[in-house]
Amino acid sequence: MRIAPLALAGIAVLAVPAIAQRALPTASVKVDPAVAKARDAALKDDVAWDIVEGLTTEVGQRLAATEAEARARAWAVVKLKALGFKNVHIETYTMPVWVRGVETAEIVGPYPQKLTLAALGRSGATPPEGITAPVVYFPTFNDLLAAPDGSLTGKIAFVSNQMKATQDGSGYGAFGAARFIGANVAAKKGAAAILIRSIGSDKGRWPHTGGTNFAPGVTPIPAAALSVADAEQLERIFKRTDKVSIKLVLTPKTLPDAESGNVVAEVPGTDPNAGVIVVGGHLDSWDLGTGAIDDGAGVAITTAAAKRLLDGPRPRRTIRVVWFGAEEPGGFGGQAYAKAHATEKFAMAAESDFGADNIWRFSVNFPDSAKAVGDRLGAALGPLGIVRSREKAGDGTDVGPLFALGTSAVDLNQSGLRYFDWHHTPEDTLDKIDLDQLRQNVAAWTAMLWVVANAPEDWDKVTPKGS
Amino acid sequence: MRIAPLALAGIAVLAVPAIAQRALPTASVKVDPAVAKARDAALKDDVAWDIVEGLTTEVGQRLAATEAEARARAWAVVKLKALGFKNVHIETYTMPVWVRGVETAEIVGPYPQKLTLAALGRSGATPPEGITAPVVYFPTFNDLLAAPDGSLTGKIAFVSNQMKATQDGSGYGAFGAARFIGANVAAKKGAAAILIRSIGSDKGRWPHTGGTNFAPGVTPIPAAALSVADAEQLERIFKRTDKVSIKLVLTPKTLPDAESGNVVAEVPGTDPNAGVIVVGGHLDSWDLGTGAIDDGAGVAITTAAAKRLLDGPRPRRTIRVVWFGAEEPGGFGGQAYAKAHATEKFAMAAESDFGADNIWRFSVNFPDSAKAVGDRLGAALGPLGIVRSREKAGDGTDVGPLFALGTSAVDLNQSGLRYFDWHHTPEDTLDKIDLDQLRQNVAAWTAMLWVVANAPEDWDKVTPKGS
Repeated sequence: MRIAPLALAGIAVLAVPAIAQRALPTASVKVDPAVAKARDAALKDDVAWDIVEGLTTEVGQRLAATEAEARARAWAVVKLKALGFKNVHIETYTMPVWVRGVETAEIVGPYPQKLTLAALGRSGATPPEGITAPVVYFPTFNDLLAAPDGSLTGKIAFVSNQMKATQDGSGYGAFGAARFIGANVAAKKGAAAILIRSIGSDKGRWPHTGGTNFAPGVTPIPAAALSVADAEQLERIFKRTDKVSIKLVLTPKTLPDAESGNVVAEVPGTDPNAGVIVVGGHLDSWDLGTGAIDDGAGVAITTAAAKRLLDGPRPRRTIRVVWFGAEEPGGFGGQAYAKAHATEKFAMAAESDFGADNIWRFSVNFPDSAKAVGDRLGAALGPLGIVRSREKAGDGTDVGPLFALGTSAVDLNQSGLRYFDWHHTPEDTLDKIDLDQLRQNVAAWTAMLWVVANAPEDWDKVTPKGS
Repeated sequence: MRIAPLALAGIAVLAVPAIAQRALPTASVKVDPAVAKARDAALKDDVAWDIVEGLTTEVGQRLAATEAEARARAWAVVKLKALGFKNVHIETYTMPVWVRGVETAEIVGPYPQKLTLAALGRSGATPPEGITAPVVYFPTFNDLLAAPDGSLTGKIAFVSNQMKATQDGSGYGAFGAARFIGANVAAKKGAAAILIRSIGSDKGRWPHTGGTNFAPGVTPIPAAALSVADAEQLERIFKRTDKVSIKLVLTPKTLPDAESGNVVAEVPGTDPNAGVIVVGGHLDSWDLGTGAIDDGAGVAITTAAAKRLLDGPRPRRTIRVVWFGAEEPGGFGGQAYAKAHATEKFAMAAESDFGADNIWRFSVNFPDSAKAVGDRLGAALGPLGIVRSREKAGDGTDVGPLFALGTSAVDLNQSGLRYFDWHHTPEDTLDKIDLDQLRQNVAAWTAMLWVVANAPEDWDKVTPKGS
């Protein structure tokens, strides 16, 4: 390991490993005993479990803009009121609705067998009787990009790029392109349909669904994810022959626009001029699992942390918990929220939407006038094993539109090492949540909210990450 | 741990832990160098992998007495001939055919949601539009047994007994009764249908199928396994209310009798009077996975070991490899085989039908005249980490009918600690097979076959285990 100099606060330059520079050292700031006490008490939290257990058991899947999501909103209102939150209400909007239909695939030749798959959100449909077409194999997404225009006419593209789990989730960004835009690329090259290897880190037989995007003017083609095991089966067959044909039936539908909504609840602050803090997760889920890790956990964690402030001394800033609707099909809830509240003063926004495993890292995006808030967060979160990233905060589909308005950000990063084993599959169920790790999340969010909501500093808008 | 005396061969009585008595100590027998060499060479075997990879990739699922099982027999004949086996042929028989239909279940109230399930083999059918009925929850199979006759009329029984993995597989015997005979018990008590928690050691959302049995005169009712996660979801709902109703659609069918068959291949021995050794696994599989661990591995392991003897000095006894048909629906292949060969002289039979994880234990059932064969096996298998059980050998659905005729037995027991995570689910695919453990199996079978096929002793019939 390379040894590089590093300046520590108040200490002469020492030789320390270069890897030590990946995180910011903790500032020598004393932690407010009230913060430490609230944080440590949250390590025995039961509220988060109660919420995610209840939501996944009593509602189950909550596909955006369907009656199931509406039932979830009603459930949320009852729960948030029972917890004592103030100003509990629903803010609605309308949006297109995409629902799954029949989805089957079978290899017609050379080795007849059924494959397991799931349509991607916004996928086009085959005729009810399906299509049978030759398959063109692309080991990576780049190989698909390199295919000549028109070369896929009448064919099914099969893209099998392999995602690996990473703690920071970057594998999803790197390999997810095959799902995010692969169908659009294949459609423009004339493909009759596209099958991708699931964007997942497991080896199992459940397919991972998720949205795909078609550019304006591109007619959606049928698009589905094979399970990783089925994709590897197809790869083994392509090692034997490139003459593979598949019969595909995929009949999803886009229904008339329907209502979705955000559920809002508040911990009132003492200073109406200090700006509102928005935290939350998304209430909707894909339709295959019960949305425990994506994102029952997120609404549970942020609500449980806010509840701890609700039950403590009244914070300076109002904390607004938002259970966003319709994140999965494209962040409709977050966009509607920012649009409706564009003129309001927000002090900070943050979301939890990456499961329930331990938070291992955090980052902030405050203006210089509030630099000390980040340092106090570092000191308060360190005892939970959380390092401070040098990167600027500002991730999140639902709070992204608030960041774009100049709202300050805190990112609390959960470990992604297991998340993509189950993400967007039927395995997204309650049993995947580890109670101890869920509680560590609540503790981190409690400490973070306590520090930021009570910060004596005032600050204005900030330059968003990536701007 | 209790300390008990134990007599070791030729050594005075010493105080050793009682647990040491669970296995027989290895006899002080010198291992034939040819056996040791063949065994150790098999730790680099590629034939078993080649067979199970080919069979699962080029054929896939192989439901008994269907065209898929027929394709598998044709595949087997080509493969066994290519490997150089002698007298390769198919022996056919006819049998009833059970095939899966539509299978859906949804909680109608109080918390509407879909459940994941799979019909059990020989399940009856609902009308095409399904049935909707109240559910009666039985935490264990014993609770179902205790329900009064007639108390289930018009209701769906839900039995949720929980299996745990054990190395010797005994958890399957203990908790499998809910599947083996639960439907028959529920039918006799008037139930409209039965749902069981899958007999599996996983926590996932794939259901475990498998056969169930109705007594003569009992009309089959619809019977299915919920995934373990779905069963636990239903248990959580029953903690809130006992007013649960489910809509169940299950439309399996029994088709007219059709042909199935055993595929047979031989390593010819030098002594036609010494008795034939029969080894093998089963070629058929359930229809959900590709039958890699159940039982592509078994035919692969036993065939790869026999191939090593085929390529070595000609053994004294003929080794007959049988890829049995139609084991899953009730051992049709094994029964047909024993019936057709009831008058032949068999020296020993053994099957591999428990996945591909390491063999950890063996047992034998030889008459006293061949006692030394067991001792030589202990010495030859010990270096692979295999202990000798004090129990009598004689397990196996396919070779069971040969044991019943008085044939000697060797059981090579694989670890069952992972097997029931995937058993009878769509997850029974190639990726579950660990190459190093598969090779340890081949090494053990090679050594075992070498010792038994070349044993100079002659022996007659033996009293079967359990008689």
